Amino acid sequence: MNFEEIIKEVYEKKKLISDEGQLADYIPELKLVDPDKFGVYISTLHYGHFGIGDCYDRFSAQSIAKVFSLTLAYSILDSKTWERVGVEPSGTSFNSLIQLELEHGIPRNPFINAGAIVICDILLSHLDNPKEDFLAFVRSLSGHGEINYSDKIASSEKKAGYRNVALCNLIKAFGNIENDPVDVLDFYFDLCSLEMNCEELSKIFLFLANDGFTLHDQRQILTRSQTKRINALMQTCGFYDESGEFAFKVGLPGKSGVGGGIVAIHPKQYAIAVWGPRLNAKGNSYKGMRFLEEFTTRSEQSIF
Amino acid sequence: MNFEEIIKEVYEKKKLISDEGQLADYIPELKLVDPDKFGVYISTLHYGHFGIGDCYDRFSAQSIAKVFSLTLAYSILDSKTWERVGVEPSGTSFNSLIQLELEHGIPRNPFINAGAIVICDILLSHLDNPKEDFLAFVRSLSGHGEINYSDKIASSEKKAGYRNVALCNLIKAFGNIENDPVDVLDFYFDLCSLEMNCEELSKIFLFLANDGFTLHDQRQILTRSQTKRINALMQTCGFYDESGEFAFKVGLPGKSGVGGGIVAIHPKQYAIAVWGPRLNAKGNSYKGMRFLEEFTTRSEQSIF
Amino acid sequence: MNFEEIIKEVYEKKKLISDEGQLADYIPELKLVDPDKFGVYISTLHYGHFGIGDCYDRFSAQSIAKVFSLTLAYSILDSKTWERVGVEPSGTSFNSLIQLELEHGIPRNPFINAGAIVICDILLSHLDNPKEDFLAFVRSLSGHGEINYSDKIASSEKKAGYRNVALCNLIKAFGNIENDPVDVLDFYFDLCSLEMNCEELSKIFLFLANDGFTLHDQRQILTRSQTKRINALMQTCGFYDESGEFAFKVGLPGKSGVGGGIVAIHPKQYAIAVWGPRLNAKGNSYKGMRFLEEFTTRSEQSIF
Amino acid sequence: MNFEEIIKEVYEKKKLISDEGQLADYIPELKLVDPDKFGVYISTLHYGHFGIGDCYDRFSAQSIAKVFSLTLAYSILDSKTWERVGVEPSGTSFNSLIQLELEHGIPRNPFINAGAIVICDILLSHLDNPKEDFLAFVRSLSGHGEINYSDKIASSEKKAGYRNVALCNLIKAFGNIENDPVDVLDFYFDLCSLEMNCEELSKIFLFLANDGFTLHDQRQILTRSQTKRINALMQTCGFYDESGEFAFKVGLPGKSGVGGGIVAIHPKQYAIAVWGPRLNAKGNSYKGMRFLEEFTTRSEQSIF
Repeated sequence: MNFEEIIKEVYEKKKLISDEGQLADYIPELKLVDPDKFGVYISTLHYGHFGIGDCYDRFSAQSIAKVFSLTLAYSILDSKTWERVGVEPSGTSFNSLIQLELEHGIPRNPFINAGAIVICDILLSHLDNPKEDFLAFVRSLSGHGEINYSDKIASSEKKAGYRNVALCNLIKAFGNIENDPVDVLDFYFDLCSLEMNCEELSKIFLFLANDGFTLHDQRQILTRSQTKRINALMQTCGFYDESGEFAFKVGLPGKSGVGGGIVAIHPKQYAIAVWGPRLNAKGNSYKGMRFLEEFTTRSEQSIF
Repeated sequence: MNFEEIIKEVYEKKKLISDEGQLADYIPELKLVDPDKFGVYISTLHYGHFGIGDCYDRFSAQSIAKVFSLTLAYSILDSKTWERVGVEPSGTSFNSLIQLELEHGIPRNPFINAGAIVICDILLSHLDNPKEDFLAFVRSLSGHGEINYSDKIASSEKKAGYRNVALCNLIKAFGNIENDPVDVLDFYFDLCSLEMNCEELSKIFLFLANDGFTLHDQRQILTRSQTKRINALMQTCGFYDESGEFAFKVGLPGKSGVGGGIVAIHPKQYAIAVWGPRLNAKGNSYKGMRFLEEFTTRSEQSIF
Repeated sequence: MNFEEIIKEVYEKKKLISDEGQLADYIPELKLVDPDKFGVYISTLHYGHFGIGDCYDRFSAQSIAKVFSLTLAYSILDSKTWERVGVEPSGTSFNSLIQLELEHGIPRNPFINAGAIVICDILLSHLDNPKEDFLAFVRSLSGHGEINYSDKIASSEKKAGYRNVALCNLIKAFGNIENDPVDVLDFYFDLCSLEMNCEELSKIFLFLANDGFTLHDQRQILTRSQTKRINALMQTCGFYDESGEFAFKVGLPGKSGVGGGIVAIHPKQYAIAVWGPRLNAKGNSYKGMRFLEEFTTRSEQSIF
Repeated sequence: MNFEEIIKEVYEKKKLISDEGQLADYIPELKLVDPDKFGVYISTLHYGHFGIGDCYDRFSAQSIAKVFSLTLAYSILDSKTWERVGVEPSGTSFNSLIQLELEHGIPRNPFINAGAIVICDILLSHLDNPKEDFLAFVRSLSGHGEINYSDKIASSEKKAGYRNVALCNLIKAFGNIENDPVDVLDFYFDLCSLEMNCEELSKIFLFLANDGFTLHDQRQILTRSQTKRINALMQTCGFYDESGEFAFKVGLPGKSGVGGGIVAIHPKQYAIAVWGPRLNAKGNSYKGMRFLEEFTTRSEQSIF
């Protein structure tokens, strides 16, 4: 499969579209990003890798990092993870408190904010040095040591993240947070502030296309079954209340972040990362969604 | 892949489990079914077909028929279908009116009752003899002419289906039903009353594993892209508010019905139908779910 | 207390305000009413009665009739009434299905549509000739025999009342409707179609200001305690989700209808009816609300 | 009117009932109270005052204090108060986040927790020394200087009040809190910790029965119109989602707290305070509700 050619063509075409999206506005620091950035990077199991555009510029991973924290928690607790958080699409927006109240503090899935906060609480209870250990874990997935938290982004969120404070305290009120909400949120905001580029993102996600093994050092991160389950979760819950649309139009498991990044994986084949900072109304990269839709149409490959 | 052996083993094992499920109780006629029935049938693209247990007993397709009506409507209206109904998981139970009210009469997806009722309305507006034409369409998918509506089941639902009457009239109040609610519901209840067995079900669904073409007469029912989209919809929305769980544990697109049937497809490979009338708390076949979970684990095949 | 003078002054002043309200649009027939009609009538226990403006023009009572049906049902079932319907403000709009679903078919109070439909079901089960008996009851309250149903209004609602059909069938699905939903709705739409003028309305409501006794023939309709309870219900629930506002600004128990009528009572003193067909955003008469607010301010009388 | 005799009789009768209520359990310190305490105190405008039982024991005012903070804020901001908080019954439980989210951070009324928190924010912005000034205000209403905050209760709530932290941060996220949530909550928990006895409570509330003037020093706290409006608000919103029931059964404006206190006022007549620590399922004093229901029935007086 000549992915390189397809990516080039689709990239050039989508680069020109008038991007109707808006920069994320609820994290002040994210508004400073150049809105016209656009990059793509694919890492495959059998056909090498290829990048184009701003694929080496680092940006804020935001919710994409929820896949890393879930992976680490799942590798520690295995199926006990699901006693604290569900595996169903929420059907509501990513930061809604309504469902959480009706369902007594058990978040629908680990990819909405409430669920990711519970996962942070789990890591806090199981890691010796949560912030350092988590960073080391992400770096080991990527194969090199330059990935870092952004203090600027983290402190920008810590100042304005009232809704996440509300979510975390509501879950605590229901008894599903073990640690002090202040510490849990501190870790959560750090985690969301991770910065990486499309190349790094696609490399990190490659183990999910490879039955749980990293490609660069053949280390097993998750079992085959666990890997499939993370992929299934990304398919049904990875794009907030646009998850159905993404499955429908792109047809691959993936995860997006309000920093404008989207990563999608094709099991046994590849991981592809796209970055375009302008977001559509549902909080997903406008250009990223359009690129991936055409990419899977042209390559005539999806999991369906 | 030796599906036959795996199916035999898993069938025998699951046959013995204590089935904690309950017969559907809101359609009086469905309570008369023998609760211990259990059958499985697989139709593959390349390795033939195989059935076991009560796989030739016909049962009530119920919500599984929503895939047939969606397929027919989609083949008529193409993307205009999605102006009337969405493609997102609902996050709520199959017959909830709450979301419908908040979202002004546009059902979340075509597999919840509200969405299926809108699809019936579309068919009513486009078919000359809806009831006859629809039956002919389903028969043509299966390759033979013995499939029929059950008047008993249909009239049982027509008598007790107050909640569906509520749903249809609420949608009408929002202007998203064109025909008389009485006619729409009449057609809807007929459609849900279709009776077929596991063999027929797996044969009908095979076109979804075959890029939109029937296997028995190589007729194109949907385009390749449309086919993938129906599969994506089944993956994210096919099991009410247990869709995430099914993706998570089974890892295949599929559809269930309160008659106790479940069909799942593996693109490019097979369609498999299971029948066990006792339902779990979410309204899906208890044994069917357990069977499919172990079947895909043993066969080490899922789309993820 | 010189009510006549105050009413004259406030009437003239409010007659001139630019009425920002809109005619009810969901019942086609109601759109044919002259939007500038404006009438007021007060009936007192000790100081006679007085009318001004279009106070002798009949209009559609609509939801105001819910007080009559509740009164009749309450006089038949006494406290058993509250096993079928609650006495709490709904906090939502008058025709919402959401709360009804969450609370399993027990409507919050008898003045939202769902509650009034349940009251109709009660009357249907207890009256020999519901339509005739109910009309006779209303006429007896008013003291003369000219009040009638409007077939035009009733049939206009029967054609377009899909949401009420939805409400009634949802309640039936929960088991809180005894009769056939078609019959219940038929009676409900008839009841809402009652036509009367401000004079008649204020005379009918006078028993609620008079400890349960009619003034014209000293007949006891309800006990003193029952009367107080109906008044309390009107205070907390009489104006849909503007009930708090009405208590806050006007300070009297009352009931409004989308025909543009409002009746309020001052216990031991009077019943006052106002009519202005243009409705504010909450479905209450724009001029009626403004008139009553100034009337109770000027007369320095409210129950608080 | 011989209130004393009626109170004595009803008190003795209700003292004996088996109290099915439970002590408030979400504030640990409140669980230490003797559950069988029972006291009543009435202060009238024209017939003196009278107390019985544990009417001189101080207890935690809790939500009753929301009337004092609203009064002070209303006397400062007048109608601008209602730009920040509504005047409608919520229809939901006192600490629900759902409605707050749907209505973008504008609480339904000042008596649910969310609304009281907004009122605290207003006071924080307008008082020089909020904690001291507020205490002085309450003392001045009561006529003597012994009322105090309870540090024990306040710190007990500060430790366990996660849900209120969630509420305050959610409102802040919507922009309807001006100050730091930590300071607002600190003040809110102090305010709820005020301790007073039935005598003091009934004396404080007497200005609401007296057109806005204190009885002991004839000072005007609110205008006549403002006073009526506070009373209307207590009538429609003073008892969480049991406000309708209280209007229905007792027929007076009032306010309850989870410390087991209830105060009710009869305009132009009296203020009555009851204390019984066991709460019914809605969070209102079990004995207090029963006492007041029979008291207004016997005295044949209510505002309706």
